[in-house]
Amino acid sequence: MSLIVFGSIAFDHIITPQADSGKIVGGAAFYAAIAAANFVDDIKLLAVIGNDFPQAELDFLTSRHIAYDGVQKVTDKPSFFWKGSYHKDMNNRDSLDTQLNALLDFKATVPDNYQDCTYLLLGNLDPALQLKVIEQLATRPKLIALDTMNFWMEIALDNLKKVLQKIDLLIINESEAKELSGENNLTKAAKKIRAMGPVYLIIKKGEHGALLFYEDKIFATSALVIENIFDPTGAGDTFAGALMGYIAQHQSHDFETLKAAMVAGSAVASFCTEKFGATRLKEIDRTHINQRIQELKQLTAYTI
Amino acid sequence: MSLIVFGSIAFDHIITPQADSGKIVGGAAFYAAIAAANFVDDIKLLAVIGNDFPQAELDFLTSRHIAYDGVQKVTDKPSFFWKGSYHKDMNNRDSLDTQLNALLDFKATVPDNYQDCTYLLLGNLDPALQLKVIEQLATRPKLIALDTMNFWMEIALDNLKKVLQKIDLLIINESEAKELSGENNLTKAAKKIRAMGPVYLIIKKGEHGALLFYEDKIFATSALVIENIFDPTGAGDTFAGALMGYIAQHQSHDFETLKAAMVAGSAVASFCTEKFGATRLKEIDRTHINQRIQELKQLTAYTI
Repeated sequence: MSLIVFGSIAFDHIITPQADSGKIVGGAAFYAAIAAANFVDDIKLLAVIGNDFPQAELDFLTSRHIAYDGVQKVTDKPSFFWKGSYHKDMNNRDSLDTQLNALLDFKATVPDNYQDCTYLLLGNLDPALQLKVIEQLATRPKLIALDTMNFWMEIALDNLKKVLQKIDLLIINESEAKELSGENNLTKAAKKIRAMGPVYLIIKKGEHGALLFYEDKIFATSALVIENIFDPTGAGDTFAGALMGYIAQHQSHDFETLKAAMVAGSAVASFCTEKFGATRLKEIDRTHINQRIQELKQLTAYTI
Repeated sequence: MSLIVFGSIAFDHIITPQADSGKIVGGAAFYAAIAAANFVDDIKLLAVIGNDFPQAELDFLTSRHIAYDGVQKVTDKPSFFWKGSYHKDMNNRDSLDTQLNALLDFKATVPDNYQDCTYLLLGNLDPALQLKVIEQLATRPKLIALDTMNFWMEIALDNLKKVLQKIDLLIINESEAKELSGENNLTKAAKKIRAMGPVYLIIKKGEHGALLFYEDKIFATSALVIENIFDPTGAGDTFAGALMGYIAQHQSHDFETLKAAMVAGSAVASFCTEKFGATRLKEIDRTHINQRIQELKQLTAYTI
């Protein structure tokens, strides 16, 4: 079952109260594809890189069966670059520098050999590009998931609303859900957002876990309680990637499968926070993930 | 198994964005005792009331097998009074008026027939009084639980630290845990707080559920996802009361029992938020609670 992962690939420079990453590879699609590759072999990356992107990183993708035919290479510009600094609480961060670079030239052209994909994950980027990807696909994927952020709600709400009508699953965080719906209460927010299009809505709450809304049902999953969050960058993208990988592996996206996929997503995302960027994600395999899933089960297990 | 519930009994005047309660009965011990009475018959209230407290409310306590021999009646002052107004998000509130009244004369004297209690819940009040209660008991209860708040950390930290050394279970919320420990990370906070005395620590996270810390183990429980929180006043006290009631009923306070007790506590607390003050708590019985426990199980159930 093939999964297209669309989104940014970037260089990040991350500063935390403890450490400084220097310039490392990141971007939503990079995290998501590596996370998904733990569950399924046929992953197709749709992204853009600049003239400074290391071949070694592309080779790593190949080693994980992640195709990059759809990764457009802009030869006269460097890759998208973001520099940010986390506050002491590790929840909030300040953007110190954003250079769009190659991202400005991103055509988001779906290669022929990406057609007939079964699942599609649209990582956070301009809703116009997300829409363009959907429109190029001759056969509609079985499940289209989308991530977005406050920024697009503020400058591209019309296009965001258009793309919401074409997807099945929206994955956003708590503040984004509140902003998109204008509701403080998450149940009310979920009703309004699901009325905009997506049948499924996942609201990520960081250290407090995540909620899945579907019809009149709700599922709540806990996040692992982590003593040392080294770098939270990419954890949300990792969650979405692992979740879609799990769905692609199980070739099902019913409510029960989505619940399990969220648990798998939480497990993989917890690894992401242990080292800078995707460093830890590159080290782990299914054995590590299964063990962490057991820890998650243990965390919430009770008898009454 | 007898349970002493110590704390405030008050008149509250609660204003929410939707409604105005007028003057109603409240106070930590009032909520906690009524919540606990769903699980165990032998509850002994230790509190103070003024000359304006309605006999009908005391009669209600009797109907729930809650003894009030230890409720001191101050004849020349009205009861403790608090008036507050909730913000639109229903999480934050402003105190508009606080009149200590009868609370100033509270002796916290344990009556003879309260001796040999098996369990003790020390609701949020001056740590000096909480300490005085423990010191009066000839036989140490099997489990002493304590609630406190930021206020006492700021004006009575020495006494609070003294009482922490004498208890088994501390139940506080997230911001209180951070303030008491000086740590932003809850796992680090839990280590520091447990080193102050309590073997068990519960950190309440409101709509995000609660965490239980014990030795190197953690348990996470989710809160029900509620669309309309009518009035959150007393939900934390209700949680603590129901939790201690469950423990007293099961005559056990091992880690597994505490986990189940937290789920029972969450279930009962969710009712508290449905109407002003203890109104809804007075209407429910074990059938309602068992049904809500099933809903909580359903909320977090998954197979992976």
